Amino acid sequence: MAESWSFLDTFESNFRPLVVIELAKGTKEETVKWFTKRIVDKKANGGAQLLVKPLVTEKGEENIYLVGASHLRLLLGAETVGLVKECNDNSMRTFTYSSRKTFRDFADDNHNFLTMAECQYIIKHELENLRAKDEKMIPGYPQAKLYPGKSIVRRLLTSGILVQIFPLHDREELKKLRHSWYGRVKVGYQPLDEIRCYFGETIALYFGFLEYFTFALIPMAVIGIPYYVFAWEDYDKYVMFATFNLLWSTVILEVWKRICAIMTYRWGTLLMKRQFEEPRPGFHGVLGINPITGREEPVYSSIKRQIRIYLVSLPFVCLCLYFSLYVMMIYFDLEQWALDYHEENESNFSSLMLFVPSIIYAVVIEIMNRIYRFAAEFLTSWENHRLESSYQNHLILKVLVFNFLNCFASLFYIAFVLFDMKLLRQSLATLLITSQILNQFAESLLPYWLQKRHKKKMKKRMTSLKTDTDLTLVEQINLEKEMGTYFGTFDDYLELFLQFGYVSLFSCVYPLAAVFAVLNNVTEIYSDALKMCRVYKRPFAEPTANIGVWQLAFETMSVISVVTNCILIGMSPQVNALFPDSKMDLILTVALVEHLLLAIKFIMAFVIPDKPRDIQIKLAKLEFESLEALKQQQMKLAAESLKE
Amino acid sequence: MAESWSFLDTFESNFRPLVVIELAKGTKEETVKWFTKRIVDKKANGGAQLLVKPLVTEKGEENIYLVGASHLRLLLGAETVGLVKECNDNSMRTFTYSSRKTFRDFADDNHNFLTMAECQYIIKHELENLRAKDEKMIPGYPQAKLYPGKSIVRRLLTSGILVQIFPLHDREELKKLRHSWYGRVKVGYQPLDEIRCYFGETIALYFGFLEYFTFALIPMAVIGIPYYVFAWEDYDKYVMFATFNLLWSTVILEVWKRICAIMTYRWGTLLMKRQFEEPRPGFHGVLGINPITGREEPVYSSIKRQIRIYLVSLPFVCLCLYFSLYVMMIYFDLEQWALDYHEENESNFSSLMLFVPSIIYAVVIEIMNRIYRFAAEFLTSWENHRLESSYQNHLILKVLVFNFLNCFASLFYIAFVLFDMKLLRQSLATLLITSQILNQFAESLLPYWLQKRHKKKMKKRMTSLKTDTDLTLVEQINLEKEMGTYFGTFDDYLELFLQFGYVSLFSCVYPLAAVFAVLNNVTEIYSDALKMCRVYKRPFAEPTANIGVWQLAFETMSVISVVTNCILIGMSPQVNALFPDSKMDLILTVALVEHLLLAIKFIMAFVIPDKPRDIQIKLAKLEFESLEALKQQQMKLAAESLKE
Repeated sequence: MAESWSFLDTFESNFRPLVVIELAKGTKEETVKWFTKRIVDKKANGGAQLLVKPLVTEKGEENIYLVGASHLRLLLGAETVGLVKECNDNSMRTFTYSSRKTFRDFADDNHNFLTMAECQYIIKHELENLRAKDEKMIPGYPQAKLYPGKSIVRRLLTSGILVQIFPLHDREELKKLRHSWYGRVKVGYQPLDEIRCYFGETIALYFGFLEYFTFALIPMAVIGIPYYVFAWEDYDKYVMFATFNLLWSTVILEVWKRICAIMTYRWGTLLMKRQFEEPRPGFHGVLGINPITGREEPVYSSIKRQIRIYLVSLPFVCLCLYFSLYVMMIYFDLEQWALDYHEENESNFSSLMLFVPSIIYAVVIEIMNRIYRFAAEFLTSWENHRLESSYQNHLILKVLVFNFLNCFASLFYIAFVLFDMKLLRQSLATLLITSQILNQFAESLLPYWLQKRHKKKMKKRMTSLKTDTDLTLVEQINLEKEMGTYFGTFDDYLELFLQFGYVSLFSCVYPLAAVFAVLNNVTEIYSDALKMCRVYKRPFAEPTANIGVWQLAFETMSVISVVTNCILIGMSPQVNALFPDSKMDLILTVALVEHLLLAIKFIMAFVIPDKPRDIQIKLAKLEFESLEALKQQQMKLAAESLKE
Repeated sequence: MAESWSFLDTFESNFRPLVVIELAKGTKEETVKWFTKRIVDKKANGGAQLLVKPLVTEKGEENIYLVGASHLRLLLGAETVGLVKECNDNSMRTFTYSSRKTFRDFADDNHNFLTMAECQYIIKHELENLRAKDEKMIPGYPQAKLYPGKSIVRRLLTSGILVQIFPLHDREELKKLRHSWYGRVKVGYQPLDEIRCYFGETIALYFGFLEYFTFALIPMAVIGIPYYVFAWEDYDKYVMFATFNLLWSTVILEVWKRICAIMTYRWGTLLMKRQFEEPRPGFHGVLGINPITGREEPVYSSIKRQIRIYLVSLPFVCLCLYFSLYVMMIYFDLEQWALDYHEENESNFSSLMLFVPSIIYAVVIEIMNRIYRFAAEFLTSWENHRLESSYQNHLILKVLVFNFLNCFASLFYIAFVLFDMKLLRQSLATLLITSQILNQFAESLLPYWLQKRHKKKMKKRMTSLKTDTDLTLVEQINLEKEMGTYFGTFDDYLELFLQFGYVSLFSCVYPLAAVFAVLNNVTEIYSDALKMCRVYKRPFAEPTANIGVWQLAFETMSVISVVTNCILIGMSPQVNALFPDSKMDLILTVALVEHLLLAIKFIMAFVIPDKPRDIQIKLAKLEFESLEALKQQQMKLAAESLKE
């Protein structure tokens, strides 16, 4: 193997563009030169040793660069990021270049050993780990300070010189994926492995969860239908339904962990070692010494952050919660007004009017959720968290608490203050259905329509109306760089989380909720798939082994739903009729049942293993092997020392 | 360094005996020869490369062997077991022989670098890892089958050829330890670091927990005293006390995790890698292939074990629980009889008689606990668990459930069925105090007295009445081998667990419980120390990073105590007087408060970090360094590959 590596090499014929870098228009020549030099420079000189090619558009502008890498470079990068691949003996192992021959499908000339998503992830990782050496600033931009070890790409991004970095779509692959994903009407599973190959593990896991969750809701929906059709309101049937739901929700969350382990084992991410987390791009502070790495980097006092969190963010969140409750009270006034109106002038119009307050409230809730989301992002960013994970956790906590209250406060109020089961059922239905329609519209159809319009405009501008696959690279990049950016699975999970709340919190009052949830999720799969494939830029793959904090959020919701359902059952007239003499006995019984159910839940969660037995054995085997290898090594050293 | 290693070497002058092996009397010559040969044989030949010396007693018997090791061998063993030691730069690192010079206090001639307990742990580890090569059986004992990889020592133990292996006491060190531990009357902390050096981490951690727990109970005790002295029975004071207790119990359990992390970091066990767990000695089955190691070893079907657990053990435990409840009902009959007797013939004797049933019941409970313990051990052993950890977990679960019910069922019955707070207080006091007295007696004083008697007898037999330190090695070993074996911290933790139950479950009814607990624990520290130093054989050190399943057990108890205390407060006449009109409001309020307290508990447990910040930073630093080292290595390889 003899490949030479120089700046000129990047124009070699077999260059395959993987990632697009868009610089700001009018970026200084020296900056561009320095940046591209660093990208192609040898590893030994602190470069990334990748390939770069400027994209010359018709107008002759040169602010877009294509990044690629040689096959060898990608394989070495795969080792650096710690990719886990399948071996010839069917076990999953961390890929190393020296042991490459033992991996399934590896051949020196097989350029499909790494999926395109993996290649792009490697390039992103290499670019982000391009670090300043002795540069004090970005050449040409004295205000963009650098210090040894600072990620160059992150500084370029925060100082606005770098507009964006995104991975290129692969038109051929995308077409195939689209076809097998949602191209034909069929009943069946999604091609999760293909999705993972194209979009990476985080997104594939979201779709896996969405699909699993939808299937898991089907039993609830099936059992719920007769309750609606026959208007069953017997005590025993309700209790049965609620009990089933509560235990079922525990089971599905536990089983998901197992399914998730199976999938991520197959994808290799279950075994991937956690990488050391670098400060997030937006983090700023006075230059100091990091106690962990011993390197110079911005340091921000933890006390200052705590002050910001507890003295600003917390009061703000409380204020928002108060405001949300205030809006809720207005809704109840409206509701009362509509009821009065209906009683005064009974007509078709007036009975339709009964639904109007709920619909308005549902819309207002959605709007408030979205506005609050921006505020939460701003605040969390202002709290200046050092790590992306800590930022995400604080953001998710803020958003979850508010969305939970905003969406469910009125339902709690109706159920446990007004005791109006009829209104509860009606509100629940309106809120659930309205929010689902709004979400589907705002999330996929609107961006899709905008994207279509934009594309038409673009195509008109390019005058030649070709089909997708015939686009030249320049046209493709021009199209893609204007597409919206997919900001991760947060909103998608949040939507599912709220839906889970609608379904489980009051399930014994409105068994039909699960039916609507299933229907919504089936279309959601299609609209989300559409969104991923046609509306947004291709996102970078993110290896992940689980759905993270969302597992905890769903579990918490299922605990809360035990409490609400027990209270609802206790309040039903049928149950009340069973304890004609003493309300006290009723409440004590309900409390006892609730505690029993909670205990069963916790015991079930404890008893059901998080990983299936065969995965456990495979993991144990790997651990054993690495311990054995270590022991062998030590034995050898020991034998040598003892011989001396 | 030039040390030669042969069988004869073991008689070298600087041989320091560390571990004693006692073989059965009349063990065949060829077996002894083979076994000692394997112990001293070179590592490369599959031996343990240790030193062995037979102990010739006056009678000329030769069934006791002393095991030692050269300094170099111990250092290499320290690397094998993965000991973590302090470096010159104050960080804790896994010891390796090649990096030995970087460790604090290391010098080639400093034989105190490893503590005696560590040396003995290393020898135990090496002996247990002495594995059969191609032997089909133990020479001389055809019925004691071996297969490649089987631990020889374990087979010798199960076939009765090996009576026991125990580490020797160090009379000098023990005297020093005794003096600083309980030699003088003083108020202060225990010398935990010295205890750890002498007895190892598991025992030191138990004493650390006992001490911490005692200190943590002091605020409860201090607040509890005035309640007793002034007979406070106001509603608000009770609520305050109970609320304080509940939150306090959460805080102390969370803070313990932090303190435990600090201690085990200092001791190095927090960083120790988990070793691969071998099957426990008692495990048996048909010879098969272990799917994890790929080695031949006994295999026992998991289904058979499940059948034994669910069809035999579970019904048996339920039967025992039923029997325990039956005994409880007899106790209540007795109690009633005593009350009737007291009413008929009121006298000093009759009022004393009132306490008799409780005392009898407390004694019966203790006896039942001990009998059940044997049954549980037999059953769990019969379930044939492959791993010691799995055996321990099943045993602990069985014992905990039974002891919990056995000890607290009568109190629950009195509190929530009879609603008799006076009787509850009285029963609680009797049970707590009786069980404490019984435990102290059965655990330490009785064995101590037996041991004293035995020692006197021994000394008489040896005719020469010397003081402890003047004993010859032969005399010392003859004394120690007859001492009782310490079976681990299980019973000690169990005692603390039940005490925690007495203190927290009904704390708002009997605030004085904490006072008794503190008093008991102060003497417990002394009697346990006495037990460890004078009654039992020295136990092998066991490295551990936490108190394991006991943390979970204590946390569960503190959750249950939230529920019981809320109910107790709700039942008090003072609280009832606050809701004169509606019992319902009362119960609802109590339920609401209970849920709030539980929520606060869980949030607190979630928010308080398990490790202090500086330990977190130190751990992150180590992780970062190992990742960096890996990266450097990969970079070097990559640079080489790219150069080719």
